[in-house]
Amino acid sequence: MPDLADLDPAGADPAGLGLIRREVASALERFLGRQRAVLSAMGDEMLPWLGAMDSLLAGGKRLRPAFCYWGWRAAGGQPCPEIFTAATALELLQASALIHDDVMDASDTRRGRPAVHKQFASRHRAAGYSGSAEQFGAGAAILLGDVLLSWTDELYHASGFPADVLRRGQPVLDAMRTEVAAGQYLDLVNQFSGSTSVAAAMRVITYKTAKYTIERPLHLGAALAGSPPDLAPSARSDTADGRAQPNLVAAACSEYGIPLGIAFQLRDDVLGVFGDPARTGKPVSGDIREGKRTVLVALACERASADEAELLDRHLGDRDLTDSAAAEVKSVIRDCGALAECEAMIAASVKEAVSALDGAPMPEDARAALTTLAFMAADRDE
Amino acid sequence: MPDLADLDPAGADPAGLGLIRREVASALERFLGRQRAVLSAMGDEMLPWLGAMDSLLAGGKRLRPAFCYWGWRAAGGQPCPEIFTAATALELLQASALIHDDVMDASDTRRGRPAVHKQFASRHRAAGYSGSAEQFGAGAAILLGDVLLSWTDELYHASGFPADVLRRGQPVLDAMRTEVAAGQYLDLVNQFSGSTSVAAAMRVITYKTAKYTIERPLHLGAALAGSPPDLAPSARSDTADGRAQPNLVAAACSEYGIPLGIAFQLRDDVLGVFGDPARTGKPVSGDIREGKRTVLVALACERASADEAELLDRHLGDRDLTDSAAAEVKSVIRDCGALAECEAMIAASVKEAVSALDGAPMPEDARAALTTLAFMAADRDE
Repeated sequence: MPDLADLDPAGADPAGLGLIRREVASALERFLGRQRAVLSAMGDEMLPWLGAMDSLLAGGKRLRPAFCYWGWRAAGGQPCPEIFTAATALELLQASALIHDDVMDASDTRRGRPAVHKQFASRHRAAGYSGSAEQFGAGAAILLGDVLLSWTDELYHASGFPADVLRRGQPVLDAMRTEVAAGQYLDLVNQFSGSTSVAAAMRVITYKTAKYTIERPLHLGAALAGSPPDLAPSARSDTADGRAQPNLVAAACSEYGIPLGIAFQLRDDVLGVFGDPARTGKPVSGDIREGKRTVLVALACERASADEAELLDRHLGDRDLTDSAAAEVKSVIRDCGALAECEAMIAASVKEAVSALDGAPMPEDARAALTTLAFMAADRDE
Repeated sequence: MPDLADLDPAGADPAGLGLIRREVASALERFLGRQRAVLSAMGDEMLPWLGAMDSLLAGGKRLRPAFCYWGWRAAGGQPCPEIFTAATALELLQASALIHDDVMDASDTRRGRPAVHKQFASRHRAAGYSGSAEQFGAGAAILLGDVLLSWTDELYHASGFPADVLRRGQPVLDAMRTEVAAGQYLDLVNQFSGSTSVAAAMRVITYKTAKYTIERPLHLGAALAGSPPDLAPSARSDTADGRAQPNLVAAACSEYGIPLGIAFQLRDDVLGVFGDPARTGKPVSGDIREGKRTVLVALACERASADEAELLDRHLGDRDLTDSAAAEVKSVIRDCGALAECEAMIAASVKEAVSALDGAPMPEDARAALTTLAFMAADRDE
C-alpha cells in the first residue's frame, strides 16, 4: 500500500512525484518479472527483449502516470495500489511509441542510449548473423514495440480494479491510442510534404502530444473514478441519443490538459533545437537533422526573410548537418523572433491551463498538484 | 441476429463458414464505419488509412474467427452476435501482424495487392513529397499496424459481452499476442542466423502459428463460454496456489489445435515454395527469396548432399533469384525427400488433431465442425 505520508500537498513535493515514481517502478518490476518467466520459457533468445525494455522503461519522467493519478484524485478517487498499476500501463504504451518512433525516424539514440533498433542491429553484428543488420534491428524493434503495445492492455486489465471499473476507462484508452497513431501519421505527412503551416503543426501536437500526454491520461484516471469524458464526436458510439452532459471534472481536465499539452510540446520543440543533449538524452540539433515540422520551425518559416527561408529549407532534414550550419539555423530561428514567439505561446498556454483549474470541482490537493505539474511540464530542460 | 438455419452440421457447410464470414464482414463494416468518422474528424489526410485497411481486411479465410467461434460452441456457448464480434477482433490483430510482417520482410505484395508500406510509398511519390518514399511508406505501415493492434482490444471490449465474461477471455488474448510476437522474433533469429535446425523451426511455428492461429482462438472462445485454459507456466499469475485442474474442453482444444496448427504452417511452407501465386496471392518462390528458415527448408538441409546443400545455401535469401535457380531449389527440396516427408508430417498431424476430438466433452456439431476445419486448414492451395 502506498505511503500516504508522501502525499503532502503543502510539502516539497505537492504533485506526489516521489511516491508516483516509486509505485510505477515497483509495478513495472512486478509486471516485467512475470513476463520474464513467460519469455524465458520460450527460449533464452527472448531474454534480450527484457534487457532492452528494462533500460528504456527505467528512464522517463512518469508524467503520464502522474496525470492519470491526479485525474483519479481530481474525480474523487483515493490513493490505492490499483490506480498506480493502471497508470503504469501508460508507460508501456509510451515505450512502445518511442521504439516505433525511433525506427520510423531512423534515430540513433534514445534517453542517452542507442535506440532499440540500433541495439538489435549491434546484436546481429556481434553474433555474426547473415543479411542486413539494419533489417534485423528494425524487425526486432517493431516486434518489441508491438508486444509493449499489447502489454499496455494486459497490465491495465491486471491492475486489480473490478471489471466494471476497467470498462469505464476502456474508451479513453481506446481513444488515446487511435489519436496518438493518427497524430504521428499527420506529423509524417507534414514532415514529408515540407509543410510550413503553423495550423497544421498545431493540429499534429494536439493529437500527438496534448491529448496523448496530458488530457487522456487525466481522463483515464477520472473515468476510472466515475467521471468519464464526453468522447464526442459521437462516432465512437452507436447510440448518440441520451448522451450524458459532459462531466465537469472531465471537462476541466480538457480545459487544463489541451493548452498544457501544447505548452509541453512547444517546450520539446525548443529543446529539440536549443537543448543540451546531455540533459535531453537526444542527439544535438536532432530535430533540424530530421526535418521535423514543429510549430517552432513553422513560426520561423512564417517570419523568415527570403534568404533566411532558403537557408532553413536547405538545412531542415539534412542528415549530414555540420555544426556551423546548425548554428546558422539556430540564429535564424532566434533572430526572426520565432523563438521568442514560441516562448510567449508556452507562457500563455500554461496560464490558460492553470486558470482552467480555478473553480473546477476538484479537491484542493488535486488542484495544487496539477498546478505544480503544469509548471514542471512547461519549464524543463530535459 | 445470425440466421441459425445456416448452421446445419449435416449440411454442405458443417463448419458454418458461410455464416461466420458474413458475420465477420458485417462486424468489420460496423466497426470501420465508426472509425471512419473518428479519423475523418481529425482530417481528410487520415482517409487513406481506411482504404488500405478495407482492402486488406476484405481478404482472408477468417480461420481465426472460425476457431474462436467453435471454441465457444465446444464449451457450450450458443450462437449470438457477441461471439461473432469478439471473434472478429482477431481479424484486426491478424491484419496488424501482416502489415508489420511485410515491413520487416520488405515484401512487395500481400493478398495479391501491393503491401501496405508499398501503397504508402506510392502515395508519397504521387504527391511529390520530399525525402525517401520507402521511409514514408514504412512509417505509415508501422502506424497502421499499431492502430489495428489497439483496435483488437477496442473491438473485443465493444463486443457486447458483459465485463466479467470479457475478463475471462482477456488472459488468452494477452497470451496470444505475446506468443505471436515472440514467435516472429524467434523466426527472425533463425532466418538471420541461417539456422538449419528442424527443432528450432518447429518451435517457431508452435508459437507463431499453431498457438496463434488455432489453439488460442479456440481457447478464447472456450474461455468466454466459461472454460478457460490453464495458462501455465504459472508465470502469468502471482498466485500459483489453488490453480484449478485444466479444463477438459480447453485441454482438448490444445490437443487438437497444436498439431493442426503445425499442419497448417507446414502446408504454408509447401505453398510458399511450390504454390501457385495466382491462388496464394504471394510472390513466386517468395519463401526462397526471403530465405525463410521453414521446417520444409530445414528438412531439406538435413537430407541434402554436400552439393545440394551448397546450392540451397547459395540461393536461400537471394533477392535476385532467377527462374532457373528457383527451379533448381525446388528440385532439390523434392528430390532429397523433404517434400514427401513434410507431406507425411502434415497427414500425421491432421490425424493426431482429429483423434483428439474423439471423446472430448463437446457437442457433436462442434466436433463435426472442427473435423471439417482440420481438413480445410491442411489441404488447401491458397
